[in-house]
Amino acid sequence: MTRSIPTAIGRAREVVIPALRAAVAQLEPRMALVAGYQLDWNDEFGNSIEHGGGKALRPTLAIISAEAAGGTLADGVPPAVAVELVHNFSLLHDDVMDRDLERRHRPTGWVVFGDGQAILAGNAMLTLAFDVLLSHGEAGVRALPCLTEAVHQLISGQSDDLAFEGSAAVDLAACLHMEAGKTGALLACSAAIGAAAVRGRDQLVNALWRFGAELGMAFQLVDDILGITGDPVITGKSSSSDVRAGKRSAPVVAALTSGTNAGRRLAALLGDGRPDSEEEVRLATELISEAGGLDWAAREADRRLGAALAALEDASLPSAALHDLVTLARYVVERDH
Amino acid sequence: MTRSIPTAIGRAREVVIPALRAAVAQLEPRMALVAGYQLDWNDEFGNSIEHGGGKALRPTLAIISAEAAGGTLADGVPPAVAVELVHNFSLLHDDVMDRDLERRHRPTGWVVFGDGQAILAGNAMLTLAFDVLLSHGEAGVRALPCLTEAVHQLISGQSDDLAFEGSAAVDLAACLHMEAGKTGALLACSAAIGAAAVRGRDQLVNALWRFGAELGMAFQLVDDILGITGDPVITGKSSSSDVRAGKRSAPVVAALTSGTNAGRRLAALLGDGRPDSEEEVRLATELISEAGGLDWAAREADRRLGAALAALEDASLPSAALHDLVTLARYVVERDH
Repeated sequence: MTRSIPTAIGRAREVVIPALRAAVAQLEPRMALVAGYQLDWNDEFGNSIEHGGGKALRPTLAIISAEAAGGTLADGVPPAVAVELVHNFSLLHDDVMDRDLERRHRPTGWVVFGDGQAILAGNAMLTLAFDVLLSHGEAGVRALPCLTEAVHQLISGQSDDLAFEGSAAVDLAACLHMEAGKTGALLACSAAIGAAAVRGRDQLVNALWRFGAELGMAFQLVDDILGITGDPVITGKSSSSDVRAGKRSAPVVAALTSGTNAGRRLAALLGDGRPDSEEEVRLATELISEAGGLDWAAREADRRLGAALAALEDASLPSAALHDLVTLARYVVERDH
Repeated sequence: MTRSIPTAIGRAREVVIPALRAAVAQLEPRMALVAGYQLDWNDEFGNSIEHGGGKALRPTLAIISAEAAGGTLADGVPPAVAVELVHNFSLLHDDVMDRDLERRHRPTGWVVFGDGQAILAGNAMLTLAFDVLLSHGEAGVRALPCLTEAVHQLISGQSDDLAFEGSAAVDLAACLHMEAGKTGALLACSAAIGAAAVRGRDQLVNALWRFGAELGMAFQLVDDILGITGDPVITGKSSSSDVRAGKRSAPVVAALTSGTNAGRRLAALLGDGRPDSEEEVRLATELISEAGGLDWAAREADRRLGAALAALEDASLPSAALHDLVTLARYVVERDH
C-alpha cells in the first residue's frame, strides 16, 4: 500500500529539479543524454518522457538539513543537487558492475548505451557534483568534505559487496558494514550536507550525519526485504532479483547464520554461488523467510529508525525541520511493506 | 633510443611520490591495493615491487607550474598529486572500457582485480584527487576548477573515442578533438594547475593551459605513432595494438582520409571494424604508413610542439621555469622515435 508522499518531498523536488537540469545541461551532449536517461528525463534518443519522479529522498534531506542549521531553502539547493548527482553516479556504475538489467521499469544505462558510456556518464555526474558545490562559493567549499567522505564510503561498500558476492563466509557484521557504506553513507551525507554548507562541520552536522546513517540502514534493510519479496510492479525490479543474483544482503546473511534448520538448508542450496534455476530461486526465497531472515530485517529496520530519531534529540532543531525529518524517516521505513 | 630524463622530472618525483603514497594510504585497504597496483608500487597481493618509475610528466608539469607563478616547489605538490591521481583514474577506467590486457608490461587492473574493483578504485582515485586539493586550503580551492574542467574533457574525449571505434565515418577534425580531450586536457591542467593554486586563474594560467594543451596533442600524436609502430619491449604495449583494436587514432584517420591508393585499400580492409587476423593487422599497419599517416602525425606533432613553445612566449616566466618547461616539452615529443 503506497502512503501519501510527505510535503517536504514535493517542496524539495520543485526547487531541486530545475537546478539539477541546469547542472546536467552543462555536460557534453552525449553525457547529458545518458545522465538524462538515468534520471528518467529522456529516452535513449533524447526525447523527453513522462517523468514519474523518484523518491527524491536525498535532495529532500539536504534541503531540510540547510533549514535545520538556520539556512534558507535556497542554501540547500546546491547540496541537494550534488547528492542526487552522486546517487545517480553510483546507480549507473553499480548497474554495470552487478549486470542489473532493469531499474525503475526501464533497461539500465549500460544495457542501452554500453558499459563504457555508462561508466563515463557516471564519472561525469560525480565530477559535476563537485562543480555544483564549487560554484556555490564558500558554502559549497564547506560542504565538499561531507560529499567526498560519503563517496569514499559508497565506493568501499560497493567494493565489499562485490567481494562478498558468491562467498559463503560473510558474517552479519561485515554485511551490515557493507550496507552502511553502500546506503548509509550517502543518506548521512544528505542529512548533514545542507547544514555543513550553512555553517561548517559542528555538533549539529555530526548529529544529522548520525541520523542519516541510521536512517540509511533502516532504508537499506527495507530495500533488502523488497529485493527478496517485493512486487516487481511496485519496486521496478524483478521479484527475488537479489536472490537470483546470489546477493548476500543482510536478511540472507541473517538467515544463513540463524542456526536454524532452514538456514542450513539455505547454505547447502546456495553454496558459494547463486541458485541454478527459477525453482531454486523460489526455494531459497522461502528458506530465507523460514529461517527468520525477513523478520530479523524488519525488526532491525525499526531499531535503526529508533536510533535515527534518537540522534535528532541530540540536536536542537527548529521545530519545522524536526517535523519534516521525523515524517520523512517514518515514510522511508514504512513504504510498501 | 631512450634519451636521458630531464632533471625536473627527477626533482618532482622525489617530492611527489611520498605525498602520493600518503594520499593513497588514506583509501580503504582494497582500494589502496588496486591503486598501488595501478601505480606500479605493489603486486596483486600488496607486496612491494621494484618501481620502474613512470614518466611523471604530469606531476612534473604541475610543480614547474607552481614555480612559474612565483610559488615554491611545495606549493606544487598537492596539485601534482591530484593530476597524477586523475591520470591513473583514467588509465584504470580506460583499460576496462577498451579491454586492454597489458600496461607497462603488466596485466591491467581489471584483468587482475575484475572490472568492478578496477572501476571502483578509479572512482576512489578521482575522489582522492579532490580531497588532496581540499586539504590544501584556499590554494587547493583555487586549483579545483582546473581539475574538474580537465576531468570533464577527459571523459568527453574517451566517450568520443568509444563512439568512434569501428566507425568508418570519423574525420580528422573529430579525431583531433577527441585526442585533445583524452590527452590534451590533463596535460593542459597539469601545466596550469600549480599556477592556479598559487594565484588563481589569470593570464599566466591561461597561457600555461594553452602550452599544456598543445604539448598534450604533440605527446598524443607520438603515442599514436608508437601504438602503431612501437617496440613492445619499450612501450609496454603489444606491437600494433591500436591497429589490432581497430582504433581510429589520428595517424589512422589521416591515412584513411589521405586520398591515396593505400588509404583506399586501408578503408576497404578495415570497413567499419577491425582487422580479422594477424596477417590483416600487418597489412593495415603497412598501409597506414604507405598512405602517409605516420609522416603526417610526426609533422603535426612537431607543429604542436612549436605552438606549445609559442604559448610560453605570451607569459613572462621566471627563467628557470621556462627552461624546465622547454626541456620537458622537447623530451616528451622526441622520446623513442
